[in-house]
Amino acid sequence: MKDKLAIGIDIGGTTAKFGIVNNTGEIIEQDRVPTNVHEKVDDFIDELGYKLMPMIERAGGLEQFIGIGMGAPNGNIYTGTIEYAPNLKWKGIIPIADLFEKKFKLNTKLTNDANAAAMGEMMYGACKGMKHFIVITLGTGVGSGIVIDGKIVVGHDGFAGELGHTIIRPGGRLHKSTGMHGSLEAYASATGVRETAIEMLTQYPEDPSLLRNYTINELTSQTVYECAMQGDNIANNIFEFTGQILGESLANAIMFSSPEAIVLFGGLTKAGNLLLNPTKKHMELNLLPIFQNKVKLMFSELNESDAAILGASALVWDMD
Amino acid sequence: MKDKLAIGIDIGGTTAKFGIVNNTGEIIEQDRVPTNVHEKVDDFIDELGYKLMPMIERAGGLEQFIGIGMGAPNGNIYTGTIEYAPNLKWKGIIPIADLFEKKFKLNTKLTNDANAAAMGEMMYGACKGMKHFIVITLGTGVGSGIVIDGKIVVGHDGFAGELGHTIIRPGGRLHKSTGMHGSLEAYASATGVRETAIEMLTQYPEDPSLLRNYTINELTSQTVYECAMQGDNIANNIFEFTGQILGESLANAIMFSSPEAIVLFGGLTKAGNLLLNPTKKHMELNLLPIFQNKVKLMFSELNESDAAILGASALVWDMD
Repeated sequence: MKDKLAIGIDIGGTTAKFGIVNNTGEIIEQDRVPTNVHEKVDDFIDELGYKLMPMIERAGGLEQFIGIGMGAPNGNIYTGTIEYAPNLKWKGIIPIADLFEKKFKLNTKLTNDANAAAMGEMMYGACKGMKHFIVITLGTGVGSGIVIDGKIVVGHDGFAGELGHTIIRPGGRLHKSTGMHGSLEAYASATGVRETAIEMLTQYPEDPSLLRNYTINELTSQTVYECAMQGDNIANNIFEFTGQILGESLANAIMFSSPEAIVLFGGLTKAGNLLLNPTKKHMELNLLPIFQNKVKLMFSELNESDAAILGASALVWDMD
Repeated sequence: MKDKLAIGIDIGGTTAKFGIVNNTGEIIEQDRVPTNVHEKVDDFIDELGYKLMPMIERAGGLEQFIGIGMGAPNGNIYTGTIEYAPNLKWKGIIPIADLFEKKFKLNTKLTNDANAAAMGEMMYGACKGMKHFIVITLGTGVGSGIVIDGKIVVGHDGFAGELGHTIIRPGGRLHKSTGMHGSLEAYASATGVRETAIEMLTQYPEDPSLLRNYTINELTSQTVYECAMQGDNIANNIFEFTGQILGESLANAIMFSSPEAIVLFGGLTKAGNLLLNPTKKHMELNLLPIFQNKVKLMFSELNESDAAILGASALVWDMD
């Protein structure tokens, strides 16, 4: 009997990454297509199909596959729909799992993109063998996948795990997509780091900073990182502040579910200790003593695009 | 075969309530002893024994009993110990389950007091049949029992569910027992309501208020309630503010675990709609649209001392 295969698809605001995964967690082949060019979701699925169909053939045809696992923003495991995702072009409720089942004739299971990342960590990453942990994705936005007793927390309606939208600074910074004030995502995302940079440069106009050499469009979490590594004071303060907000939010999450570990994942983790040290410090500072110095705070060990595909594909191994 | 019986014990900062419960959830007999007079936990257990032993005899003797279920602040289900409970006289780590097993020769299972309340709601109260809900206890302090997939969330070390200590106003009001600033418990407890009253009366010295007729020692959540019911403006603002803080915290909790319902329990719920209305309003205001108008916010339907005993006794029915 040949090994059965799975397809993992991670849908993000800019691109969808997809690949074929075997049951030992190896990605046999992978590719990507843009998600921000097609007004209609059907056209996106068609373009993905042009690349995925030949992959399926090369792997031995449809009969080698158990199914498709997908991660997407606001993806709902109960309904297989993407609902009102602020960062996607396709508005309203998109029955994406049904659309993929019709197109590819394979069972398709959908979950939130951060939940898929948590599945990946549990099966192939830093959280192998753990039953209680939280994965925080720090990219354009902030997502979370929460695992309790070895299961992803989806709640009564499939939407649980939106730590990025919890309020950590009541009345604080406006989040432009959600209209909320002071949510974690408004600060601890790549977008948030950029806004903190603009705020600090405006607030202290006399303080010298390498960041002043960049145009406002060039100010990104990447440029802030580069300046911080050169010892720039404001750039370092930006990461200190970002870590403080993130650390406070993680402390609140720990007092909720008491995880063994928190894994940070996504583009912002490239900042390394510039982000990890203040986050750890403020996390511990805001914990009751019974929770202090117990929770491992770490970066994902998985390659980012691999992790997204692996995590999504992990949904398939639960299928009948 | 006769029905098997359970003993439920709820240990609080002032009294321990205990009773004998049958397997249909009826309390056959109950009593209470103080917890704040004995310096040594053994003396407390002895006093409880003087009242409980005759009850056990009247119910047919030890052989009718499956075991003892207990709820206590910082009670840990994995270890059977109470650890560093700020509101109890007995300091450090108290092996309370072991001590009860030795004394009464019955299997004893311990959990956090708010978790016991959640067990009670699930088996006998407003949450019968629900798999995802949160119970918030609003008394001298603020506790929480979180149920996901029909199970109490205890986390990797048994201490999960401390929503009262999550930070909702960073840098805000000092919590005198924990040293933390801006935790939910510092505002939404009976103690917190009293502090808000003192703050508001001091902050607006010119505003008339019935609350000014009371001495500082008489200012309690009860007097604030009575004045608010008489239309007092400051007293009403105190509940409005308390509900705002509580509502914001509940919104954060909903975005974490997406429960079907949140049940409010304990002394402060006597304030009724004075508390419920602003809590509901600010909860909804701080939710992402996918969570809005979905979560039932309600008061416990159980009599408070019954609920504590029933909830604790519910631990027994899981025993072998």
